[in-house]
Order: sequence, then C-alpha cells, then structure tokens
Amino acid sequence: MTSEHSFIASLRALATSAAARDLQDDVAVLRVGGTDLVLTHDMIVEGVHFLATDPPEDVAWKLVAVNLSDLAGKGARPLGLLLGFTLAGDDAWDAAFVRGLKTASDHFAAPLLGGDTVSLPAGAPRALGLTAIGEAEFAPSRAGAQAGDLLWVSGTIGDGAAGLRAARGEIDAPALRARYRRPEPRLEAGRALAPLVHAMMDVSDGLLIDAARLAEASGLCAEIVLDEVPLSADYRAFMGHDLNARLAAATGGDDYELLFAAPQDAAEHIRVVEKRLGVSLRQIGKLSAGSSLRLTWHGEDVPAPDRLGYEHGLK
Amino acid sequence: MTSEHSFIASLRALATSAAARDLQDDVAVLRVGGTDLVLTHDMIVEGVHFLATDPPEDVAWKLVAVNLSDLAGKGARPLGLLLGFTLAGDDAWDAAFVRGLKTASDHFAAPLLGGDTVSLPAGAPRALGLTAIGEAEFAPSRAGAQAGDLLWVSGTIGDGAAGLRAARGEIDAPALRARYRRPEPRLEAGRALAPLVHAMMDVSDGLLIDAARLAEASGLCAEIVLDEVPLSADYRAFMGHDLNARLAAATGGDDYELLFAAPQDAAEHIRVVEKRLGVSLRQIGKLSAGSSLRLTWHGEDVPAPDRLGYEHGLK
Repeated sequence: MTSEHSFIASLRALATSAAARDLQDDVAVLRVGGTDLVLTHDMIVEGVHFLATDPPEDVAWKLVAVNLSDLAGKGARPLGLLLGFTLAGDDAWDAAFVRGLKTASDHFAAPLLGGDTVSLPAGAPRALGLTAIGEAEFAPSRAGAQAGDLLWVSGTIGDGAAGLRAARGEIDAPALRARYRRPEPRLEAGRALAPLVHAMMDVSDGLLIDAARLAEASGLCAEIVLDEVPLSADYRAFMGHDLNARLAAATGGDDYELLFAAPQDAAEHIRVVEKRLGVSLRQIGKLSAGSSLRLTWHGEDVPAPDRLGYEHGLK
Repeated sequence: MTSEHSFIASLRALATSAAARDLQDDVAVLRVGGTDLVLTHDMIVEGVHFLATDPPEDVAWKLVAVNLSDLAGKGARPLGLLLGFTLAGDDAWDAAFVRGLKTASDHFAAPLLGGDTVSLPAGAPRALGLTAIGEAEFAPSRAGAQAGDLLWVSGTIGDGAAGLRAARGEIDAPALRARYRRPEPRLEAGRALAPLVHAMMDVSDGLLIDAARLAEASGLCAEIVLDEVPLSADYRAFMGHDLNARLAAATGGDDYELLFAAPQDAAEHIRVVEKRLGVSLRQIGKLSAGSSLRLTWHGEDVPAPDRLGYEHGLK
C-alpha cells in the first residue's frame, strides 16, 4: 500500500456520512430539499498536473472541465464553482487564467460563486483547487450495476492520452492536442442518461481502471470487448488500432467520457438519447457475476495489463 | 491597487450570479429547495498561513475552524467538508493532520464528504484547501445593516493576535496560544442570532476592517466605541488595555467571533440568546448615515489607524 493509499484509507474512517459515499464515488451527494446536491473538489498542481509553460487559459479550462466531468457522471447540472487560487507573482499568467476561467464558466453555464486567493512563497509551484456544485434529480452511484447490465461508453477513448503526446510535441496532431487541453465533459448526455442507468461515472483515469472501479463497487466483473472500444479517426491515424493501440487508449486516461451500466431493455431509450444529442454511445461489454475485469479481443481472452490507468487521489 | 486586488476585481466580473453576492460576502449562498445552502472555500499555505513546524493537528483544526467561522457568520449549520490535500512526502505529518481533522470534524459535527489528494513536487510548500457546506433557513448578508442599528460582537477580541505572539514564543501565554491555534467558531450563536440581525459576518481579518466592510456593504458608517471592545483577562494581563492595546486587539485578526448589526428592539432577544448559550455578546457601537468608520475613546473621536486589519483574498 502506498502512503497515498494509506492516507486515503485513514480519511475514509472519517467519512462515515452517507453523503460521502464511502469516498468510493467521484463526488459527494447531499440530499437537500428534494434534490441531490452533487459536490466535487479537484486540485491541480504545477509540475504535476500541468506545466508552467502550458497556456494559462487552457489550465483554467481543464480545471473547470475535470470537475464538471465528475458532475456529468452523476447526471448533474452545474450550479456553480468555488475557486482556490494561488498567486505566484505573475500578473500576466493570472490575467490569462481568468480569461480561460471566464471562457469555461460561460461555455458550461457554471458561474463562479466564490472561493479564496492566497499568495505563495517565492518559487513555489501553483496549486489550484476548484469545487463544483451541481444538482440532479437522482445521482446514480458507481455501485448500482447489476449482473446482465450492458456496459456503455460515450464518445471516443484514447484521444486525451494521445493529445498529451501531441502537447509534448511527440506527434503533430493539433486536434488531439486540443482534445487534451480543452476536454468537453458530457454534461448534457449525463443528465439525459442518468434516469436510464444502474451505475454511471466519468472516465478520467483510464477506461480499464474506471471500469474495474465500477465493477468492484457493484460487486461484479466488467467484461470488455476491446474490439468495441471506440477510437477516433485521428487516434487510429496517429496511434493505430491494433491490440496494443487499443490497450493504450483504454489505459491512457484524460478522456472525460461517460461510462455506464444499464439494463438491456434500456438500450432502445439510450439509442434515442444518442440520436437526440448527436453523441456516440457504444456498448463495449457487460457486467457479470464475479469480480475485476475480463478482456477479449477478436473473441479471445486477453490478460489485463499491469497498469489499468492512473491511480490517484481521494475522489 | 495591488495585483491581488486587481485579480479579484477581474474575478468579480465573472461572478454575476446572485448566489455569488458579488464576492463581497465571505460565502456564496445558493437557494436550493427552500433552504439557503451556504458555501465557502478557504486555502492555507505553508510558510504563509502556517509554519512547517506548527503541529499538523492544529493546522487541520484551524483549516476547519476558519471555514466553519464563515458558516457561523451566516447562521448556517455545517453539512460537510471537502478537503483538497497536498501530499509532501511526510507520512507522519499527514497522519497527524488526519488525526486533527477527525478531532475537528467530530467536535463541530462537520463530516468529511470528499475532496482530492495530490502529490507535490519535491520541496514545494503544502497548499491546503477546504470547502465547507452549510444550510440555513435564511443567511444574513453583510449588506443589510440599517442606520440606527446597534453593532455587536461576540466573545473577546484580540486573543488570536496575542496568541500568535505566544505561538512565536514572544510572550508566555498558553491560553492565548491555544486560542490562536484552536479557534472556536461561533456556530451555535450564529444560528441563534441569524433571525434577529440585519447583517452578520465573522471577524477574521480584524474587528475594524471587518466592521468597515460591513458598513461599506450596507452604505453606512460604523461608529465604534473602543472602550466597549471586549478584551479577555489574559489579553489585558499580557497586552494591556490602553488605547494602543485596544487598537492592536481591534486590528489583529484571527478572532473568529461574530460581528452583527441588529435593530435596537432586538436587544432584549439578543440578551436571551446570550444567557441561553452562555456566550458574551457586547454592544460596541452603532451604524449611522455616512461611510467608513468613526472611532471614539473616552467620549472623544480618535483617528482610525492606517492598517485596519488583514486585507486578503477573494472571500
């Protein structure tokens, strides 16, 4: 157990409220006056989650988008944002960050409600926090999947990880880089799907690790047909689409797509949502009795890779 | 205008939602299902707001207490906390922090609901964020005071600032040091007083600066009788109680008391709250037409000091 795991385990002992969902979900869900209030807080640190040379507008966008993706996974509409901002003594950076924050806040209709600004000691890396508050009629957990449910994912998988390579200059793929820097959380699709699913979450750390979490929380096995993992044309062009390329996509993270388990008889309604919103929704497998993951490729079992995605943080 | 002021002004242009209260209040207030949901987020940075040598249990307590004091100032009951924690690679520090967090969370009945943990680059100072969520039937703003209202403060003023001197070893006053390290936000008094007041806030940056903010937000002048500023026996013993000692108390900050403006005919009800809760509530002046502050001492006007308290941060 890493020290981070042990730290989170010690926090879990404090988080005994039902609203905390045992710190197993991406969010806390408080029932207030007949609605589910959905709360999430994510931090990003300079030199860890972003680089000092990244455009500050994009850093702001991403900070907003990663938090709103947690709301999307619970079918929640954003009510607002609280910003924890560290001033590092670079006015131009800060001004560009505010421009990016405004762009994202307007784009996602997630107004800034408050927060805090603090000064950093000279030379310290920025550590930026954002709390997003949303509301949902009913926020699905990741623990509600049932054996026999179909497993679905929205959009395409792997573009974020490929986009990081583009941002690093390793491949010349501006569209993938944009996908990495300016992810679009699936807020509208999340709201439309929430009433149809047994379990839902966003894919942020990697499709396989997030599917394993959904399966574990539900006490089931996630069977994933790797042939069905949706790849974009750009991903195929730059990264390929053989088994290795598919496993790279499914473990890369930074997708901010929706992963959900729904009963078979919901499929028709899900197809209606797909058409109405113009968002691709793909069956990639199912949930079955058992535990962990079962992966297949061309009809054959393949072993799960050692690393399923990014493991981090109290979510 | 400092760059921090200009940064906050640029954020204000984004915070157009009514719930943001124009970023002039300590909190955001969202009306959800018939209750006021009160939201606040404060950050503390190592080397700025606390020292690497401070006991981690006390750092955790203070992070919780400063956020809950914002809720107290709005008469809100805590519903829960979201923690933004930075791991700096010192397991013993982190474990002690969790112990302090549990102590504070239990003490204030404010359960941990979620958050995020992130790793820091080697040597970076910790930057810790906490979001507190509370609910109130009606959360008073700082902008509602009316001319003729009496101005009140809870408890005693100046102990936090004197306690910082004790924590630095400048004076040998363990009780004051404890007051600095483990402030007790006035949650119960805040809830009892909220229905009786026109305006309320917590005193965190200094009595004079916070009174000036309440007056400014209400479009009035705060007249403060310095003779009436309540000082503890310890404060008097270690710091004195002449005009300079009183001005030091009233500008020192870290009090986490309540400051409120209430109509004269509420005084009797306020005295009932005082007796029932056993918390001292003192009339220290009144609100009148005009602007800013008017200070008196032994019946004579005295000029306001250049520095009224700590100025910081988007609140």
